[in-house]
Amino acid sequence: MGVRMVARPEVIPTQVEEPAVVGRRTPAVNGLAIVTGCARYTTDFYWPGMLVGQLLYTAYPHARIVRIDAARARQVPGVHAVITHAEVPGENSYMLYDTDQPLLIADVVRYQGDAIAAVAAESEEAAAEALAAIEVEYEELPGLFDVMEAVRPDAQQIWPRRSNVYHHLTVQRGDVAAGFAAAEIIIENTYQTQCMEQAFLEPEGAVASKESDGTIVVHAGCQAPHRDRRQIARSLALPETKVRVIVPYVGGAFGGKDETHVQIHAALLAQATGRPIRMIRTREESIRTHVKRHAVTIRHRLGATKQGVITAMEVAGYGDGGPYANMTRQVMEVFTIHASGPYYVPNARIDAYSVLTNNPIAGAMRGFGMPQAHFATERQMDELARKIGLDPMEVRLRNAIETGKKMATGVTTLDAAGMRNSLKEVAEMSGWRKRQRVERRPAPHLRRGWGLACMMQGYLLGPKVADNAFAILEMNEDGSVMLRTGVVDYGQGSHTVLAQIAAEALGLELTSVRVIGPDTDKTLESGSACASRVTFICGHAVLRAAKPIHDQLLQTAAELTNLPRNELSIRLGIVHRNGTPLELTARQLAAAARARSRPLSSLGYYSAEYPPKIFDERVFDNPCAYYTFGANVAQVLVDIETGQVTVEKLFLAQDAGRILNPDGALGQAEGGVSMGFGYSIMEELIIEKGRTRNNSLESYLIPTVQDVPEIHAKYCESVDRYGPYGSRALSEGSVVPTAAAIANAVRDAVGVSMVRIPLTAERVLAAMNEQGGKA
Amino acid sequence: MGVRMVARPEVIPTQVEEPAVVGRRTPAVNGLAIVTGCARYTTDFYWPGMLVGQLLYTAYPHARIVRIDAARARQVPGVHAVITHAEVPGENSYMLYDTDQPLLIADVVRYQGDAIAAVAAESEEAAAEALAAIEVEYEELPGLFDVMEAVRPDAQQIWPRRSNVYHHLTVQRGDVAAGFAAAEIIIENTYQTQCMEQAFLEPEGAVASKESDGTIVVHAGCQAPHRDRRQIARSLALPETKVRVIVPYVGGAFGGKDETHVQIHAALLAQATGRPIRMIRTREESIRTHVKRHAVTIRHRLGATKQGVITAMEVAGYGDGGPYANMTRQVMEVFTIHASGPYYVPNARIDAYSVLTNNPIAGAMRGFGMPQAHFATERQMDELARKIGLDPMEVRLRNAIETGKKMATGVTTLDAAGMRNSLKEVAEMSGWRKRQRVERRPAPHLRRGWGLACMMQGYLLGPKVADNAFAILEMNEDGSVMLRTGVVDYGQGSHTVLAQIAAEALGLELTSVRVIGPDTDKTLESGSACASRVTFICGHAVLRAAKPIHDQLLQTAAELTNLPRNELSIRLGIVHRNGTPLELTARQLAAAARARSRPLSSLGYYSAEYPPKIFDERVFDNPCAYYTFGANVAQVLVDIETGQVTVEKLFLAQDAGRILNPDGALGQAEGGVSMGFGYSIMEELIIEKGRTRNNSLESYLIPTVQDVPEIHAKYCESVDRYGPYGSRALSEGSVVPTAAAIANAVRDAVGVSMVRIPLTAERVLAAMNEQGGKA
Repeated sequence: MGVRMVARPEVIPTQVEEPAVVGRRTPAVNGLAIVTGCARYTTDFYWPGMLVGQLLYTAYPHARIVRIDAARARQVPGVHAVITHAEVPGENSYMLYDTDQPLLIADVVRYQGDAIAAVAAESEEAAAEALAAIEVEYEELPGLFDVMEAVRPDAQQIWPRRSNVYHHLTVQRGDVAAGFAAAEIIIENTYQTQCMEQAFLEPEGAVASKESDGTIVVHAGCQAPHRDRRQIARSLALPETKVRVIVPYVGGAFGGKDETHVQIHAALLAQATGRPIRMIRTREESIRTHVKRHAVTIRHRLGATKQGVITAMEVAGYGDGGPYANMTRQVMEVFTIHASGPYYVPNARIDAYSVLTNNPIAGAMRGFGMPQAHFATERQMDELARKIGLDPMEVRLRNAIETGKKMATGVTTLDAAGMRNSLKEVAEMSGWRKRQRVERRPAPHLRRGWGLACMMQGYLLGPKVADNAFAILEMNEDGSVMLRTGVVDYGQGSHTVLAQIAAEALGLELTSVRVIGPDTDKTLESGSACASRVTFICGHAVLRAAKPIHDQLLQTAAELTNLPRNELSIRLGIVHRNGTPLELTARQLAAAARARSRPLSSLGYYSAEYPPKIFDERVFDNPCAYYTFGANVAQVLVDIETGQVTVEKLFLAQDAGRILNPDGALGQAEGGVSMGFGYSIMEELIIEKGRTRNNSLESYLIPTVQDVPEIHAKYCESVDRYGPYGSRALSEGSVVPTAAAIANAVRDAVGVSMVRIPLTAERVLAAMNEQGGKA
Repeated sequence: MGVRMVARPEVIPTQVEEPAVVGRRTPAVNGLAIVTGCARYTTDFYWPGMLVGQLLYTAYPHARIVRIDAARARQVPGVHAVITHAEVPGENSYMLYDTDQPLLIADVVRYQGDAIAAVAAESEEAAAEALAAIEVEYEELPGLFDVMEAVRPDAQQIWPRRSNVYHHLTVQRGDVAAGFAAAEIIIENTYQTQCMEQAFLEPEGAVASKESDGTIVVHAGCQAPHRDRRQIARSLALPETKVRVIVPYVGGAFGGKDETHVQIHAALLAQATGRPIRMIRTREESIRTHVKRHAVTIRHRLGATKQGVITAMEVAGYGDGGPYANMTRQVMEVFTIHASGPYYVPNARIDAYSVLTNNPIAGAMRGFGMPQAHFATERQMDELARKIGLDPMEVRLRNAIETGKKMATGVTTLDAAGMRNSLKEVAEMSGWRKRQRVERRPAPHLRRGWGLACMMQGYLLGPKVADNAFAILEMNEDGSVMLRTGVVDYGQGSHTVLAQIAAEALGLELTSVRVIGPDTDKTLESGSACASRVTFICGHAVLRAAKPIHDQLLQTAAELTNLPRNELSIRLGIVHRNGTPLELTARQLAAAARARSRPLSSLGYYSAEYPPKIFDERVFDNPCAYYTFGANVAQVLVDIETGQVTVEKLFLAQDAGRILNPDGALGQAEGGVSMGFGYSIMEELIIEKGRTRNNSLESYLIPTVQDVPEIHAKYCESVDRYGPYGSRALSEGSVVPTAAAIANAVRDAVGVSMVRIPLTAERVLAAMNEQGGKA
């Protein structure tokens, strides 16, 4: 529905030659508050009369609820409310795309994170006592915990009237059978990626209160405040206007806070009690409940000529979404889009299965299906190279997608220069061509190896999804500017970039711009901070808001100076004539324009636009149009006695158009590579019969500064035709290729083909024993 | 600077035949919160760590400050800050148009309300102790307390380099000498109006706090939050973006909160201490400090033929502004505009003097110069009628300004039908023609009389002043709408009317609209709630915001129904085809439009527009273009033994275009007449040598429900060409004619011509003794 194809996407010409603000180093606009401890997070809000909110979670991952009796719990001293499914005034369901998860379960619990009751009490102790006093009688049901079991036709059904494969997407291009027939080499493997935890620093929480007029105000770290508002209103049976969502500082999200977590539960308790409610998940509850990165089982078949040219590809991905649809389908769509990698694949079939199980629920996490797809495909490409004795870089160059060529999804590639550029760059950075000069056996028990992986990252939500944002700019008489955006900056730096875009577009210094971030009473909807869409979509909204104000300023400048308007410009707060500064400031213009009753506030709206004729709807109707490319090189040491993999160096070259905020971009690169490193080496939720066993950051290990290897990250800058000031997305791509690069390096070091991550010592040792790795 | 003359003011056609929301009775949108006590006013905000802020006021109305020593005050336990002029980081001045009043006096105090120091302490007691401990050495100076003395060339000067007559405006039209030469009757009198207190229920106050990032947040009842923000920023040396002004519920203003009161002082203390500051004026401080309705001395000379046709008018008004310019000039401009009344005066000269004295400062109050002007002119018209033996109504009809005729200010009258209509209506309501049938001597000591007065009210700020507003509308997926307006509803009902306009323009029910009121972080500037400009200016801004959303909805409706768009309309939330309801709701349209990525949020901006060629700049450059008319009839009883005037009945007929909110409009009419009654009969600040002696509501008497007479108010509805949905201003006109009507009734009852208000028993008795009133 959301697609707008325009002959030439309406892009305000922002490919300026010498930007004054964008591209320059700057501290994050909210950095000082964060590093000085002044930033207030959800957990920092305390109000008089505040109650503790807690949830009762199911005792079993799959069970029928025979009876819920909260009568005794309601008698516990200090308890103000106990809410079950029966007390939800509106819709008892939530989640992101498919709102199919009950807020409070009435009949059947289907995973370990299902909540049954919500309690508001005067103390943690009273709340805990009330939770313990709620009588729930369960009839335990057998669970379905294996995705490949769940897809079998004779499998038990998670839902009475819904197939376990709740969505199956097939993308086909060319003649796959002919492609394989023409193949001289066929590589076939089944890969397995794990369930991964976002491990944001700040666990989910919400502080909700009820105003005297019945309005519900919810403070919560989240990614999509306006959608949260909608869902809160829907469950509380209020109009949206009677719900206000305020997003304070947020301690990370990585996709894990894209859907609501405890906002609705806290709001329900606030509505029921009239008292402020503080509901903060413990880390254990956080890991138990929220969506994870999908574990995907990937059957991958790759056909190629002896020269290494791909003739066909067949990929089937089975994504384990847990028991609720939520957005597994969307993740598997993105998996599909990226399954063929940044390569020209003339004959392809990709099947993506969205599968329901009784495992923990899965959803958005940085990369959103791409890391899984790339792990398989980039491992396959490496196996192909080895099989035909070609350098892994060469095999990628031979198949690299080219501008104007069609991807497997039928999309005509707009600009693929970044593919070759990043490969070239990463080769130089890492000394790829000279790697054989480095000692491969630095100690008798150690083997060194090098691995390469490429990536492409499609961004935005796709032409079939409404993908838009508002921005409001307000210029004051003193020349200072308020930028109101409804998009969340949960650490990714979006507010800094949007402030830069506003300052550049208005001709001001960055310090003139203050960002008012998401608060549904202050800002208009800008959509979720997801899909690497913020700089592009919200940035264009800012540009559109800036244009009329800039026009008013220039017109005022022309009147004040009696000079032709087209000779005037504003740069860093100073009016220039043909590049020469005049004695006239933007501040003076602002005051003069206001005195002339010229509007210096403006609303910008941007809805994703796409060039015409680049999609082939017969193949797939919701692909990506815009892509960035990148490549990783990993240098590893494998201990052949223990299987321990030590990553010595990681190199990332990424094409990201023009870099708007160099330090912020570097943070994204290094952060993404670190996260990819964790994905590759150490991070895995241990799930036994639907229960995660490592529900703390002591048992679920993420890389610390001690663990993270030497990272060399570089952006190959270019000027994108479509993004604000020539920028491209960069927040997710950096996490995508790392796992495959490291696994390929392990292959290089000890000769074992790893099909499963993370590459724990046990797994590598076992593989060496099975496959007979090089000693 | 602000003038926009357009061939036809760009008015969205809103003169619909059958509006569904406007014109219908409705409770005020914020009424429930107010009557249930849920509304939070400034004084209701308490935060942890809050300090009490207090100001040290001058001990003398006029004195040189020899020394200020705050050292001892700073040692008082519990005192966190003592600020004098030396500690103001930015501009040490404020006020509305001319920011010439120091926040904290450095050298010379010039009126009783001047503040010298600000104190922040942990308790009222500590603050009081600190105030007492501030050592101020004064050298008392002689004061200038009489406006007619102040204008004498040999008068002492209030300011070293500024004339006591800081502004003198002359408006001249025709040949005044010839006009008087042609006059057969000349009426000449000097009138005196008093200094009047707004007596808003809620005294001024502010609660200020400092955020961790240095932003200053001020909660305060006020009329112009964005201008307050500007002045706070200016004095605190902060960019405007670092100041946030939030307007909670406001307990009345009537012009008296148009300029800042203690907002800046409280903000200075918050900035200095980092602690929340609560600074609430006592009633005594309130009356001592804030601007009042100007006392004006008016010399009035009226020439007419024996038939009662005006040939010439000469008016000189001397407005006592106290020692600061502030906006005395603007009040005297409005005085000038209205000095010739709603009459055609071919030859006129009006002089308006803005005079500085050491009396309490004067500024905006409902009517803003009009009640003073009308008191004189309407009394004169009555004297003229008596002199020539004509019915007072007849003399007014003979001179009534006509559409297309020029006013004394050179303005071509756009529509004067309301003048005759309201006269006709008030005659009917009051039984004017049959009044002689009523007993004129109901008791030996009582005399009954009837008085008539007309009024015209020009509205908006005038073409030379930037007069504009923004409004933001946001329609949610559930069809509910947020209207963000920066304009204050301090009780006048503006938010209800704006919500009605939004609902009507979008085709929704009023209950679908929620108003988000002024908070500089949430809303854009809409200017001050003054000059009866809100419905017109902010209403047009709302209409402009609504238009594109309504277009999107209709377009969506056309697509969903496959019907031609021009056959479709939306009324009360239901889509209609040629007036017949369809099975399609606005809510469904909203959801469908959003799914299509259509923007349902919009910003509207409106800057006052004027028809071309109606102003004659040679005469006066900042007159009013838009006027309403009205008439009062008063029926009084005068006790000839005591002089006591009892007003039995007051009738108001007012022309106000289409009435948008009938109950709200009635409230404005009755409230205005009551205030005019108080002005006429009882309200007067007793000022002795610059000091007000009645600084409480026990000593300054405003009419209570016991005092207010029977009021009959009626609007003569019409459909204005320019106002939203045909509306005109109505919030100020009702206060304008009452004083003259009652004084004219006293003239009718006992034959004395009162030239001074209020008409206290003492004054009436004295006049009867002097003039020999009828017994």
